Formats: sequence, structure tokens, C-alpha cells
Amino acid sequence: MSRSARDRRRDNRADSEPTRRKAPAFLRRSIPAYELLDEESLLRLEDHAEWLLSEIGIEIRDDAEALRLFEQAGARVDGELLRFERGQVRELCRTAPATFTMHARNPANNIEFGGSNLIFGSAYGSPFVTDLKGGRRYGRLEDFQNFIKLTYMSPWLHHQSGTICEPVDVAVNKRHLDMVYAHLRYSDKPFMGSVTAPERAEDSLAMAGIVFGEEFMQQNLVIQGNINVNSPLVYDNTMTAALRTYAAANQGNVISPFIMGGAMSPVTQPAIIAQAHAEVMVGIALTQLVRPGAPVVYGSFLTTMDLRSGAPTFGTPESTLATLAISQLSRRMGLPFRCGGHLTASKVADAQAMMESTNAMNPAIMAGANFIFQAAGWLESGLTIGYEKFVMDAEQCGAIARVVDGLQVDEDQLAVDAYREVGVGTNFLGVGHTMRHYRHANFQAELSDATPFEQWTEAGSKDMQQRAYELWNRKLEEYQAPALDPALDQALLDFIAGRKASMTDAWY
Amino acid sequence: MSRSARDRRRDNRADSEPTRRKAPAFLRRSIPAYELLDEESLLRLEDHAEWLLSEIGIEIRDDAEALRLFEQAGARVDGELLRFERGQVRELCRTAPATFTMHARNPANNIEFGGSNLIFGSAYGSPFVTDLKGGRRYGRLEDFQNFIKLTYMSPWLHHQSGTICEPVDVAVNKRHLDMVYAHLRYSDKPFMGSVTAPERAEDSLAMAGIVFGEEFMQQNLVIQGNINVNSPLVYDNTMTAALRTYAAANQGNVISPFIMGGAMSPVTQPAIIAQAHAEVMVGIALTQLVRPGAPVVYGSFLTTMDLRSGAPTFGTPESTLATLAISQLSRRMGLPFRCGGHLTASKVADAQAMMESTNAMNPAIMAGANFIFQAAGWLESGLTIGYEKFVMDAEQCGAIARVVDGLQVDEDQLAVDAYREVGVGTNFLGVGHTMRHYRHANFQAELSDATPFEQWTEAGSKDMQQRAYELWNRKLEEYQAPALDPALDQALLDFIAGRKASMTDAWY
Repeated sequence: MSRSARDRRRDNRADSEPTRRKAPAFLRRSIPAYELLDEESLLRLEDHAEWLLSEIGIEIRDDAEALRLFEQAGARVDGELLRFERGQVRELCRTAPATFTMHARNPANNIEFGGSNLIFGSAYGSPFVTDLKGGRRYGRLEDFQNFIKLTYMSPWLHHQSGTICEPVDVAVNKRHLDMVYAHLRYSDKPFMGSVTAPERAEDSLAMAGIVFGEEFMQQNLVIQGNINVNSPLVYDNTMTAALRTYAAANQGNVISPFIMGGAMSPVTQPAIIAQAHAEVMVGIALTQLVRPGAPVVYGSFLTTMDLRSGAPTFGTPESTLATLAISQLSRRMGLPFRCGGHLTASKVADAQAMMESTNAMNPAIMAGANFIFQAAGWLESGLTIGYEKFVMDAEQCGAIARVVDGLQVDEDQLAVDAYREVGVGTNFLGVGHTMRHYRHANFQAELSDATPFEQWTEAGSKDMQQRAYELWNRKLEEYQAPALDPALDQALLDFIAGRKASMTDAWY
Repeated sequence: MSRSARDRRRDNRADSEPTRRKAPAFLRRSIPAYELLDEESLLRLEDHAEWLLSEIGIEIRDDAEALRLFEQAGARVDGELLRFERGQVRELCRTAPATFTMHARNPANNIEFGGSNLIFGSAYGSPFVTDLKGGRRYGRLEDFQNFIKLTYMSPWLHHQSGTICEPVDVAVNKRHLDMVYAHLRYSDKPFMGSVTAPERAEDSLAMAGIVFGEEFMQQNLVIQGNINVNSPLVYDNTMTAALRTYAAANQGNVISPFIMGGAMSPVTQPAIIAQAHAEVMVGIALTQLVRPGAPVVYGSFLTTMDLRSGAPTFGTPESTLATLAISQLSRRMGLPFRCGGHLTASKVADAQAMMESTNAMNPAIMAGANFIFQAAGWLESGLTIGYEKFVMDAEQCGAIARVVDGLQVDEDQLAVDAYREVGVGTNFLGVGHTMRHYRHANFQAELSDATPFEQWTEAGSKDMQQRAYELWNRKLEEYQAPALDPALDQALLDFIAGRKASMTDAWY
């Protein structure tokens, strides 16, 4: 193992011990990526994506500028339907950078996309929130702020995601202002802005500009838009307009086809994978047509549905295979890759929730994903974010940090001295080697209970959900906001007040 | 993909649809094994195992015959401590078969060990049982029988394991008779016999002989012993005597060092892995000294402990890495490999239980394990087997069956006709391709709930544990015993009556 791999290994460590080491701003993988498919299968998937783009085509709705850009680049345009020569879209993606830095308000929290880097981010997009005592209800701005605070406090979450939950108590046309403010005020890690309308993307950019400086933003990535595809094979103008807004400002986009096989694609996984590959390439190409070199992430969000009821399902074996396979396609593009997350259809943070979430997350880790948001809080197929689930998931991200750190097989780790000290048949609890290593040898999970049954019973027979309830409440009590220059804070508040005064409330 | 891989794929499929296909008696992997470590690291681990065996040594306690066999094979014997030349133990393992068949009472349930085969078995060894309504209590014979019945009914469990739970209501020196009887009477899949004393191993062999025929057993594997090591680097005579009994009868052994790092080994993973490798090789070598060619499984059971409390912990990132690495060592030995399981320290079938279990199982699957018992029911670090946990885990084994089946990238799976039928922007629910595939495209989980929140609430807001309670009760109500020739049944009962009459009850 190289020197730099060892340094990375050291960087990745953190735990809740008294001698706590600073958690890293992001992770670096020291383990190989799993290769599910052979070359022949990969070529066939790539070929099928090219067939889809050349024969079936892809539609961009109500966005004349996007159509113009593609036509100018050589696409065949038929109304709003675009068709491409084989290899043409992939060629347009070539200017996208393989790796790039995203700047945080606190430079210590800057993150690196691509390569062997791994970034965890919070959930995104739930209209509902739930907790053990309060039950399920619509999300409010206070919930949104709470999840930003919990993200800020977690050493295992590196990115604040964007719309962690919908603050339904704020008007639809104004809530992006309060969300971006919360991102900037209550935490200091990287985050995403609004994509629900071009002017909201512009507001997000303007607020980032107040804090980071507009000149800095011309050359540096500080904010991203999360772009979904209207699968099968359609981009709508809301998404393409937001995409163009961020790309034009040299800011970031994460392009993620969300495909439930059998509905937004055929039901068979190879078709789903190839379709997603085709769709995401078109989004990436559009960012590069708007601004060559604009930072963009190759995303995918592939899952299954219960084919009897039509309900989406997560952490399923078919989605595991799809995640493993599409990661190989993204690696062949040489772009930062997003997939996975702690995903589940369960309504509560029960056995199903963590079984499905673990199953949804593990293939992304094995596949070598670079960016995994939706990594903390997801419940009910994304309709709900749960407080208990959030802290469970975040801790799992900590365990994963240890996995991607890998093993270092050297004399110290092989413990030659320990065997010389005790020989056979004696335990190693007290030997010097154990004493030297016990603080940092193992990841210490705070929420997992390993106490004897009697002790657990005396402590109230609390299951993980109950312990998680106590943990997130304690965390919120302990929260202290990161410093923000009062002048910048005031400038943000003034900007928000001005924008809000210019609009009447819209509630849909 | 080859024709035979396609056949395997078809074999692996089963679901709960009306058009249910017969589940296979075991699985065949169509996906590659994950390679965590590079050649240099693997060589270093192997070298360290050889160093342990040559310099530190390994002890076999109170078993003169085992010492004699090793001395005769060239070991240096110092009292009960054995030391070996480098490479000597590994050389002794060479006669162990790379693959072998294990016969079930029902030949349709015969299983194949080694190669690309994968076998799931139930939990093993818990003194306690628990269920949602009855709570935790000592296991009884009725519980033991119930778990045999549930194993029999699960299409996803291929092996009945052995002491699924301890029937504490039967005397210690007699309970093996009732357990082997239950294995033979209430199910017809492969199983393990007693290892707690040589005469109990003999009884297990005798009862298997009644059903399978003694002549058949001379050439065919029908029963196994599960052999643990008294780590660090000690075998006790109970285990070696049972091992020798099964091997002498040309029956099977599964050799599994159970190592909690920091106690039974140094705390660092590379040391744990190398030590386990050394220990298991000695057990395998002993089977081959007793009878060259005797079927044996290279097992490992490596986990961590909470280094503050000394409690064992499961599904931890360190154990994930150890499982991935030791699987590579076993593959280089060319022997069937056992590791993993649905393992947890949780007391109940909650979020922690399934999160840890999934994390403990996934690396075994990625690592290419051939035999995974402890795959259904484990709770509380193995002290308890849970009814709800059992059915949750069993269903997960079904999901894994789909994962190891892999992807087949061909024209039908790529759904060319489906795209030609619908084009862009239309859903695929009704197309011919979906109709052709929807029954078998996805694994159908019975216990995972994906219904809308309102429907779930109306059905009583049941979490997975509550649904699992209903499922196992329904399964036991529906249970019907497989046929057993009444003459054989009577012969078994007569044998048991005779043996029981010859002993006074012992309770410890």
C-alpha cells in the first residue's frame, strides 16, 4: 500500500472516543470497486444506449434554447424529439471534468468529487416528516432547519443536500429563499440550491454570491442543482432551465434519472440501465453545451416496483444489480458518479427500514460511488424524512467510512509482538498491542446496543428507534451554530426580504 | 453468458406467485467474487499464518490420538503444543475435496458444496428463544421442532443447520437424540449432528445410518459436525474427538474459528485473519489425517467487540473487511468456504437487528461464500433465536438468491420491442414486454410493506416485526410433515428409547 493510501486511511478515521480525531470533510476509498459485468455485457449496454438515442430519441419539452443548442451541435431535431448519431452525445460529454472541488462556507469542509472520493449527503425532497412521538405530518421550516443542524453536527455527512424536506408552511414561490438561508446560516458544508424554477435557481445563485463572492463563483463551484429526468426519455423545461442556469454560472449539476422499472422503463434491468445511461448522457451533454467544463455529476437512481400494486420498492436485489452495473458505465465515462442511498419504502424506522436501506447502500459502496446523497433520513419511498432514521443512517455512514478505509497488512497490524507476548490459549485483552490499538481499531457505534440482556432490560428494553429518538433530541439541544459574519447575514436577510416583498404568496 | 449460466439462472428463481416455480435445493452464483486485497497482502497474510504455526504453535488439549496423528505426519510436538514446518499444514490439507455432494433424506434437496455453489442454513446454538408475544425464554424441544418446520417450509433455506436452539427441557446427555430425530422427521433437507461428546456424534451417525443406510454412508456425505476452535490457537478434545468421529465415518466437518478480535486474537484485523487461517488449516489437516478425502468446509466466524465493554458486536465494518479478506485465502486453498450469516447483537427484531444482519451477510455474498449457516433467526449475539427474525432473514435469503443470479444482457432483457412499442414519454406498464416479464422480473418480498401510508395505517400500522409474527404463526399452522417410511420412523424411535434407557439424565 502506498504512502498516500496510508495517509488517506488516517484521514478517514474518527470516532466518539475522548481522543476523538477530526472527521474528514469527505472520504477516500482505499478498496477496489466491484466489477459485476464483463466487457462484452458492458459494450452491449453502451450500444443499446446509443441505439436508444439514435433510433428512439429523447424529448426536451418547452425549452427552445436547449433544442437550439443540441441542433447546433448536430442533433437531428423533429419537433421536440432529438436523435443523435451513435457516439455523438458521449462525445459532447468529453469536456466535463473528471474531478473537481466543491467549496463550502467553511473551507475545512470543501469536498472533492470523482476519482476515489466518497461524499455522503442528507435526504432530499420529502413533503412529510416523522418522529417517534410526533408521528407523520407535513414538513415545516423548523424541521428543515433541524435537519440542517443534524447534518452539520454529523461527522459522517459531508454535504447538506438541498430540499432536505419541503417546508410546507412557507409559500411555494418563497420557500427556496428560506431553505438556502438555512443552508448558509445553520451549517457550513456544501449544499444544493433550488431547481423548481429558473428564477429560484437565480435566487439561489445570488444568495451564494453574497456569501462566497460573485467573482469567486465564476471560477469555483459552491452550489449545485439536482436535476431529474422525466423518464422515459423526456426532459421537461423546469429541469433543463434550472440545469442551464447553474451551468451558465459555472456551477454544478447532478443529473439523475429516477427510474422505477416497469413504469418509466421496461421491467428488465439491462433495459433500465441502458436507458438511464442514455438519459444521463443527454443531461451531461447539455451542461457542456451551455458551458464547456461546467462541473457535473453522472447520477442514477434506479429501483423496482411491486408489480402487483405499482408501489415503488427499495433495497431490492434487482436494484442492487442495476446499481452495480451502471456504476461500471459511469466509470467508463470517467465522471464523478452518484448512486445509492439509505432508501426504503417503510413508514417507520423498523427492521424493514434498515434492512432495505442497508441493501440499497451497500451496492453503491461496493460499486465505487463518489457521491451518495439520500444517505440519511429517507422513509416511505422518499415521501417522508424521519428524525430517528436520520441519526441511524448517519451513523451507518460512519461505519461505511471504516469499510472504504480497507485493510493495511503490515507488521504492526499483524501483531507479531502480541503473539510473542501471550502465546497460545490466553486472551489478548491486556497485551501491549491491544492497549496501543483499542481506541481506534474499531468504529464505535453509538446507537447499536451490545449490552447484556439484563442490562438492556434494566435500561428500559429500548429498541433502536427509541434510542435514536433520544439521540437526535440530545443533538438538537447541544447544537451551536457556526459563525457567520453579521454583515453577510444581514445582506442575506435583506435579499430575502426584498425578494419576498416582490411576490405574492403562491401555494401550489 | 454461457448456456449453463442461463440454466442456473432459471434454476435460482422462485417466488410466491401463483405460477410459482420450484425453488432450487441450493444456489449457483453467476456473479464474480469481490477481491479486496492484492497479491502482496494475501501472501503476507499466508506467510503470517505459517509463522504462527511454525513459531507460536497450536495446542490440542487432551487428545493423544490427534497429537499422535500430527506427530506421525511430521509435526514437532512439545507436550500438547504442535509446531509445523512452513507449508506443512497446508500440504496436509491437499487431499480435502474441492467440491462434494451432501445427500438429503429427499434427494431433490441434495446440495453441492464448493465451486460457485451457495447454501443457506438456519441459526445454530442459541440457549434462548424469543417471539413478539411470548418474549425471551429458554428454548424447548417444541421450539427446536418449530424451527425445523420453518426451515423445511422456506424455499430459501437449503440446510437445517444443527442445534438450531438448545432444547433445554431435555437432559443434556439425551437431547441430541431428540434433535437428530426432529431433523429427520420434520424436514428432509441436509443437517448437522451432535459434537458435544464423541458418543453423541456416534449416536448421530447411527441415526443417520438408520435412514440413509450404513453402506450408503460409507461413500456418501449425509451428516456434518460443526467444529469450533478454542481460539487463540487451541483445539480442545471435545471438538477434536467429534471431528475425528465424523471424519472416520467419511462424514463431514465444518471447521470454524470463532474469533472476537481483541479477546481471542489481537484487535487488528490482519492478525485476526491470519490467525483464523492458521487455526482452520490445522482442523482441516486433522480431518485428512483421520481419513484422506473426508469432506470438510473451510469456515470462519470473525467479528469484533465493543472495546469499552467487552461485548461482541456484529455487522461491523471491521468484520466486513475480515470476511472479504479471509474468503480470498480460502479460495486460494480451493476448498468450500463458510462465513457470514444474519448476525446481530440486538435483542429484538428491530432496525439494529436487520441493519447489522444485512451488513454481516452482504460481505459473505460479495466474497463468494459457499455455505452460510446462521442465516436465519440469530439475535443477541447468538444467545437467542427469534421467530420473527427467522422469517425476516429467510426472506432476505430469497432476495440474495436473485442477486447472485446476476444480469443477463441480451436482446430480450434489453427490451428492444418495448421501446419500439411505446417510444418516449409513455409508461411501460401495459406493453407486451412488461406483460411477458412481470411475474418473474422481480423478487416478491412477502414481509416488506410498500403500500401507501393510508392503506398501511388502515391495516393497523404494523411494523415488520408485527407482520413477521403473523407470518410465522401462519406458516406453522400450514405445516405438513414430509413423508417418512413408518418402519424407519419406528426404528429411529426404538433406537432413541434404547439409548435413553441406558443413561440417567444429566443436566449439565
